[in-house]
Amino acid sequence: MKEIAKLMDYRSDVRVVDATLRDGGLVNDFYFTDEFVRALYLANIKSGVDYMEFGYKASRELFDENKFGKWKFCKDEDIRAIVGENNTDLKIAVMADVGRCDYKNDILNKADSPIDLIRVATYLNTIPLAADMIENAAKKGYEVSCNIMAISNTQERDLEAALDILGKTPVDVFYIVDSYGALYPEQIARIADTFLNFASKYGKKVGIHAHNNQQLAFANTIEAVGDGVDWLDGTYAGMGRGAGNCAMELLLGFLRNPKYSVFPVFQFVDKYMTKLREEGTVWGYDLQYLMTGLLNQHPRTAIQFTKDRRNDYAEFYKELVVQD
Amino acid sequence: MKEIAKLMDYRSDVRVVDATLRDGGLVNDFYFTDEFVRALYLANIKSGVDYMEFGYKASRELFDENKFGKWKFCKDEDIRAIVGENNTDLKIAVMADVGRCDYKNDILNKADSPIDLIRVATYLNTIPLAADMIENAAKKGYEVSCNIMAISNTQERDLEAALDILGKTPVDVFYIVDSYGALYPEQIARIADTFLNFASKYGKKVGIHAHNNQQLAFANTIEAVGDGVDWLDGTYAGMGRGAGNCAMELLLGFLRNPKYSVFPVFQFVDKYMTKLREEGTVWGYDLQYLMTGLLNQHPRTAIQFTKDRRNDYAEFYKELVVQD
Repeated sequence: MKEIAKLMDYRSDVRVVDATLRDGGLVNDFYFTDEFVRALYLANIKSGVDYMEFGYKASRELFDENKFGKWKFCKDEDIRAIVGENNTDLKIAVMADVGRCDYKNDILNKADSPIDLIRVATYLNTIPLAADMIENAAKKGYEVSCNIMAISNTQERDLEAALDILGKTPVDVFYIVDSYGALYPEQIARIADTFLNFASKYGKKVGIHAHNNQQLAFANTIEAVGDGVDWLDGTYAGMGRGAGNCAMELLLGFLRNPKYSVFPVFQFVDKYMTKLREEGTVWGYDLQYLMTGLLNQHPRTAIQFTKDRRNDYAEFYKELVVQD
Repeated sequence: MKEIAKLMDYRSDVRVVDATLRDGGLVNDFYFTDEFVRALYLANIKSGVDYMEFGYKASRELFDENKFGKWKFCKDEDIRAIVGENNTDLKIAVMADVGRCDYKNDILNKADSPIDLIRVATYLNTIPLAADMIENAAKKGYEVSCNIMAISNTQERDLEAALDILGKTPVDVFYIVDSYGALYPEQIARIADTFLNFASKYGKKVGIHAHNNQQLAFANTIEAVGDGVDWLDGTYAGMGRGAGNCAMELLLGFLRNPKYSVFPVFQFVDKYMTKLREEGTVWGYDLQYLMTGLLNQHPRTAIQFTKDRRNDYAEFYKELVVQD
């Protein structure tokens, strides 16, 4: 049981990151209208969100620019077209995937860029390359986080070794990423404890990015903040791959720091997210995602099930268990 | 942080209660087909659920029998038509609402009834009447629980006084009921602690019935079970009033006791719950329920919003805050 005071009071070190365009972009191949992105930017400013993640810096060698919206690539000029000089308190983030980003060329010097934070996303087996990307981004002048994906599949000793390597880089934030939505709050508490030990040793912060396969994205996020995790990812209406993420409206409703305000989030969801759903964009909790979460599997089979407009859940479960 | 062992192992005292017909009946005025009820009964048996709640024993003086399906009234012969002699491990429950039940007449002697458990539902201000109903049901030979509704609106001293009164009755289980879906896991832990203290003093068990206004019904339920709460309510596909309840498929996926099996739940949801939704029955998490949960209000305004097929969320929030 956590202390009562924690619910009433707040920790000023908490940072809220809006990942709608980035994780939500995985649902609609990053085809957001400029109006949507601009309105989201304004809603984030109004609601006191700390960082807005615009999308990926994806390699244009690996990905065809004609097959994705522009936020898959996040060219600096495209961000600039939305935010201008961004003379606001809202900082700008992009994600750089290990092995899928020409970081040496595509990430400019901070002095020439509207971007503030580079989020390096890695699996546990590519930590050395992640470390190189971190060094590169830090040298160029950015804040840097390292997002360790598929954390529910890692062994604790390997994770500790990874955090020890990352601790020696100039990274600012270690991120817990429950890519499969497989973890329960008790496990988040345990993992947060490991992350926080290394963070404390190396003077870093810890963040969490949760998925909603078991309707626990918000619960796991507030478990983590109660444990001392400071950086919290949310997305409007929970928009994100598969079962989606921790809903920004739940998160800002929970946080007590008066700088946050949930009403602009309601306004944005009302005006823009309902429309996206009506146009046929599908995300959010459903049984197929619960099943892959429960079995600690990548959601790709569940995403395919959704794309195929199947709803024979029991048959799908049989397929998963037989494959297992 | 709870102990690691708790997640791997299980507590054999845990009891799972399927409240689909009762709380779900509040969504469709208890108009379930006999085929649905029979299949649900069989699914509960197969999945190892401990109790199945058939509905309310509602007063036929207060409620017009022509305006509700039969599970609003749960006549013993109607239950018997589904379960026969019920020679199974699944026990049968009904809810008796304080002030809305002719309990002296409508609850027969256990010896003549297929019912095993009477769930007395009360607000905090009607505890003496609840105590009388408990005495009556126990004398007739039933197991009895007392479900204290709207727990998020109670003051702790009042709650303690109520539990002290109830402790002296023959009730078997005290139930925490988060009617408004307003509570966070940290608060559940605190409330469970209070309940468990009185339960231990008087030799009672503790249960939880959660609502999903903030996507926390499942999270609050597993928080509670980690704290020592034994009786857990779930509903198939989370069907229940407003934002609905803890989904049975999440709960049985989580519980480790080998007597439980989640697959029959998937099968039932696949075959029956999807159909209910397609026919227009609406329940589950949505922004209007998040808002009433956040403001710790009864969901009636949000239910009306849903009935009116409104989706102007921001306007609704303004109405709530202005009324407040």
